[in-house]
Amino acid sequence: MSPHLNWLDEEPKRLDEEATAAARARQAQLTKPPGALGELETLAITLAGWQGRVPSIERVHISVFAADHGVADEGVSAFPAAVTAQMIRNFVRGGAAINVLARVLDATLEVINLGTIGQAVTAGAHDVALGPGSANFVNGPAMTDAQLAGALEAGRESVERALGCGAQLYIGGDMGIGNTTAAAALGCALLSVKPEALAGPGTGLDERGVAHKAAVIRRALEKHSGHLRTARDALRCVGGFEIAALVGAYVRCAQLGLPVLIDGFICGAAALAASRLCSGAQAWWLFAHRSKEPGHAAILTALEARPLLDLGMRLGEGSGAAVAVPLLRLACELHAGMATFAEAGVSGKL
Amino acid sequence: MSPHLNWLDEEPKRLDEEATAAARARQAQLTKPPGALGELETLAITLAGWQGRVPSIERVHISVFAADHGVADEGVSAFPAAVTAQMIRNFVRGGAAINVLARVLDATLEVINLGTIGQAVTAGAHDVALGPGSANFVNGPAMTDAQLAGALEAGRESVERALGCGAQLYIGGDMGIGNTTAAAALGCALLSVKPEALAGPGTGLDERGVAHKAAVIRRALEKHSGHLRTARDALRCVGGFEIAALVGAYVRCAQLGLPVLIDGFICGAAALAASRLCSGAQAWWLFAHRSKEPGHAAILTALEARPLLDLGMRLGEGSGAAVAVPLLRLACELHAGMATFAEAGVSGKL
Repeated sequence: MSPHLNWLDEEPKRLDEEATAAARARQAQLTKPPGALGELETLAITLAGWQGRVPSIERVHISVFAADHGVADEGVSAFPAAVTAQMIRNFVRGGAAINVLARVLDATLEVINLGTIGQAVTAGAHDVALGPGSANFVNGPAMTDAQLAGALEAGRESVERALGCGAQLYIGGDMGIGNTTAAAALGCALLSVKPEALAGPGTGLDERGVAHKAAVIRRALEKHSGHLRTARDALRCVGGFEIAALVGAYVRCAQLGLPVLIDGFICGAAALAASRLCSGAQAWWLFAHRSKEPGHAAILTALEARPLLDLGMRLGEGSGAAVAVPLLRLACELHAGMATFAEAGVSGKL
Repeated sequence: MSPHLNWLDEEPKRLDEEATAAARARQAQLTKPPGALGELETLAITLAGWQGRVPSIERVHISVFAADHGVADEGVSAFPAAVTAQMIRNFVRGGAAINVLARVLDATLEVINLGTIGQAVTAGAHDVALGPGSANFVNGPAMTDAQLAGALEAGRESVERALGCGAQLYIGGDMGIGNTTAAAALGCALLSVKPEALAGPGTGLDERGVAHKAAVIRRALEKHSGHLRTARDALRCVGGFEIAALVGAYVRCAQLGLPVLIDGFICGAAALAASRLCSGAQAWWLFAHRSKEPGHAAILTALEARPLLDLGMRLGEGSGAAVAVPLLRLACELHAGMATFAEAGVSGKL
């Protein structure tokens, strides 16, 4: 282990049980039948335990991590690898879905380029050059120890920047042609399931393309057989730069007590790895949505996660998480703004 | 039929097929894999067809209809009937969930009191006094022809007020102790299903209470057997004032081309009745959420509706619909604000 990764061993911050209890008690007094606001009540109580006070979510931070994947050489994506760098430019110029969502939510958005093939326009993006994308993991490990460390650090640093700017909620996003293949391979390694269980259409493969993708993942898992015992080894062998950065970010958020809203399939695989690296970190995470990518279901089940939304989204970029932000804000507003039975002079249950 | 209800026979407004096609074409050009925004793409396209232009939802109108139900005398609610009038006061003072949601969404909110037992504080509410609530429908029809007409008119008028203020989206809400019993009875009459299929806990009945509620509904359906053939008869015999008002509102919205976001169980039963009264009206409705009230599922299935949210809510007041408004707004912003592949210089699918 690189010495500067010692932070990975820190424990998650404790929740504030007093604030949780106070929020639960207040929910029972608001002018509605007990439990009638469903998940919005649970959200308010959970957020209170995270924030140690009457909850509110004003400042949202979004970090989109982008990187290329050597495994794209195997023809596992419906789009050419050049799109990764092109989309970084789109992020910087403000034209992608996550840009629109960040503007509407008044969220801060940063783009971290961890390494793309060819020349990426990085003016306006954080540049953490780990190499021209990860290596093709059917032939060898996706990354070196140093690259893995650099990616985890990039995630940690993004969290510390977010906290430095007063963020109350962290969203990680991903961009990288080929990354559903890496996420599926990582998931297979962590869950010991077959490639068919997690390989899906990604950006739009047909049935034949999905079968080919599963075969590529199977070759990779055979190649690295015996070297996938720990989450860190699995990340290094079959992960990707942006996935590893998300892992570092999710762990660091839990350690520093910054609530996370987790996006879809790629982020789910990263969360699964992060939950293995830092026990208890999941107590600081909310799962935003159920991706249409079919493998997401197995990852959510393994994490015992019940996402807030199920809108058939499968874009990445943190977009599904951003779409869930208004639910958190409404939950906070209802919690703080509704009258109690006593205040309103409304009779309670018979 | 009362002569002034002739408007019920008007046809729904036609959708703008050109705007729909233009929106669909634009979605295919935005910088994302085709379909990757899931329901948000469908929403934008649907809204374009409703509005006849690039869609946007700024002005949202919420009408909450409140009324008492004679059937509450049968002990079918976990809360006393006095709560209906108390909650009208809470709405007027701004302390209910729907008030908080309306403020956050910058929506206009009006409360229409259709008749409560005892004295309701109606300063600040529209007062459409149809009587001290509907009659106990285990003994006879819930309302007279004149009361039904008055309730339907109240719904129509709320829609016309909303349009007069430039509303782009209509939300109807309900308040009325006993109204899950009326909605379930109405649903049973319209769907020819047994009371057990639609009777649920409402504001919080236990198992025994739910069984009693089902028995009350069975008695009512037997009492009115042979008089429930049309949706209008069913509404009059086993409906409620606020349910009938919602029916009138949903029909009028479709006729005048004001998109509707439909709330949970009570509103679902009203939508079912409205769909029978005005064929094709449903083309102007979106279903906001799946209520935790178990009978909602059968109503949604009958309407072939797939709601946007499933958050375990069961409050009424239009709250579930209000919570879905940000999804519509984000769908519009993404549609209008994202760059196209050509604008961003991003490569298309291989």
